[in-house]
Amino acid sequence: MSLAKSIREGNRLALARLLTQVENGTAEGRECLNELFPYTGNAHLIGVTGSPGSGKSTLVNCLAFLFRHPPEGEPPRQVAVVAVDPTSPFSGGAILGDRLRMRDLAGDAGVFIRSMASRGSLGGLATTTADIVQVFDAAGYEVIFIETVGAGQAEVDIARLAHTTIVVESPGTGDEVQAIKAGILEIADILVINKADLPMVENTERALRSIFNWDMEDPTHHHPDEPSNVKVSRVTKGWQVPILKTVATDNEGIQPVYQAISQHLQYLYQSQEWLRREHIRLQSMLDLLIQNTLLERWQKSISTETYQKVLNNLVSRQISPYHALQILLDGDLS
Amino acid sequence: MSLAKSIREGNRLALARLLTQVENGTAEGRECLNELFPYTGNAHLIGVTGSPGSGKSTLVNCLAFLFRHPPEGEPPRQVAVVAVDPTSPFSGGAILGDRLRMRDLAGDAGVFIRSMASRGSLGGLATTTADIVQVFDAAGYEVIFIETVGAGQAEVDIARLAHTTIVVESPGTGDEVQAIKAGILEIADILVINKADLPMVENTERALRSIFNWDMEDPTHHHPDEPSNVKVSRVTKGWQVPILKTVATDNEGIQPVYQAISQHLQYLYQSQEWLRREHIRLQSMLDLLIQNTLLERWQKSISTETYQKVLNNLVSRQISPYHALQILLDGDLS
Repeated sequence: MSLAKSIREGNRLALARLLTQVENGTAEGRECLNELFPYTGNAHLIGVTGSPGSGKSTLVNCLAFLFRHPPEGEPPRQVAVVAVDPTSPFSGGAILGDRLRMRDLAGDAGVFIRSMASRGSLGGLATTTADIVQVFDAAGYEVIFIETVGAGQAEVDIARLAHTTIVVESPGTGDEVQAIKAGILEIADILVINKADLPMVENTERALRSIFNWDMEDPTHHHPDEPSNVKVSRVTKGWQVPILKTVATDNEGIQPVYQAISQHLQYLYQSQEWLRREHIRLQSMLDLLIQNTLLERWQKSISTETYQKVLNNLVSRQISPYHALQILLDGDLS
Repeated sequence: MSLAKSIREGNRLALARLLTQVENGTAEGRECLNELFPYTGNAHLIGVTGSPGSGKSTLVNCLAFLFRHPPEGEPPRQVAVVAVDPTSPFSGGAILGDRLRMRDLAGDAGVFIRSMASRGSLGGLATTTADIVQVFDAAGYEVIFIETVGAGQAEVDIARLAHTTIVVESPGTGDEVQAIKAGILEIADILVINKADLPMVENTERALRSIFNWDMEDPTHHHPDEPSNVKVSRVTKGWQVPILKTVATDNEGIQPVYQAISQHLQYLYQSQEWLRREHIRLQSMLDLLIQNTLLERWQKSISTETYQKVLNNLVSRQISPYHALQILLDGDLS
């Protein structure tokens, strides 16, 4: 039986084997991805992003458990977790206590947890994540969590892989408003304030609500200190970003997040948003693939010797970076 | 007089003009960069990175002021600040109070502050930052701060542009240890705990010190929960990362950071580290340039029509991402 077929039939060993091949970028892995691709497009991809220490891994753990043991009348779902965050307990990067909490999921055959082994290059990481998500999708995992750290451009890139993006904040230094302005507003479908038992939670909540409410009341109004690149497109398109409080370590407040995820999925289906996001998602994936492949091919085309010689001339400032570029890409030694 | 020459002679208007040209990627800007490149390599490039809310902009503000008004016996330096962080008060992205604090530097002709106007693509951002740093370097700015947010891959890329990297933490959620493991240990030359008047500062300090001390006492020992990719190369090479406490809003504890920066510069010169970092820095710059240029050229080579057709086939799952790649790069329609 082919590897792809074994995976489609639920063979976990075959699945694990393909995931490794995909991470290593083997030809067999790529062949198998091609074979599986027609079976993708069914999973609900949920991005979970937040700073280290916001407790997002614990939250994902609780949510995964709830998808496995849902409220009465709802079917349990097959759940996969892809931890892109190197600080995630799923990746083995956190203190022991956190990993102990993950034991709830350990013996469950309906759950598959995969952490990205290496950080690698940025583009490579996002491409590999996309490939791994595809494998889980084709293997019949209905809910796939993609956990990423922070809110930089890299995380925004990875967020484009998801249908629903949960941004996790925790009451902290009181400058949450800054984090929101840094592009989080643009990617959040659901906002979770975790560690809601900490003293400063009211400040955090007030700051978040004021931003979201103000935007909804009057989308044309701009606060004088608001950078002009902050958009509220998703709010105005019929989805109001819920702001929910949890204490994930105590399993508190998880059910409302679970419900918000279901409601967002419904919203995606009922509006044209699901299709639009699939389009963006696959285009991002394709563009990343192109970028990485162009670089790989160029690297193969040039000898290490030539490259080193040009680099040495650059370091000794005999040529400028743009001259070096010209020489390396066009062989222009003039 | 040529633009490059005006800049070399200290004309601020010419400098501002070139910075805009560099940001817009004009041919004149590139020409001027080539002309200026031989005059670079003198500035001390200081990266300052930390989460939104850690107060790194305020710290940079205090440090810049101290470089302008140094302790007796030391010359004042020309200081430039490049704010890559879109949440930075330097970029206009923060609350009014923060920006008011920046007034100390406003009227000083020996200081030039430039924030990156747009986030743009990730690669583009790092390349443009490198170019802008070069301009300041050639223009005679002796100390150049590069302020970036967070500690993701993007920030590590930008940190490679610096000779000395300051990581700013603030007492917060108590999970500082996670942030360190997420690659910060690899890039920090100086660690600053800002907002040291907050209650949890002792925990933060203890967590940071335990990691650094343990690494120094026995570099071969590995903690069982330590991911294997954490390296302590810089510690073992003769530089002990200082951990310093500041309250930047009150201008407290700034002088020790200033001294640590000077000591680190001395260390770089006395060891072979300065040369090694220059090599890494210029190589990173060159690699980014190559990557961006390859993509730009490919984009120009393909018609929007072809691209859209392939993308549509991908979205409808008639072809896989790797098939789409083959078609777009090789015209392979088989």
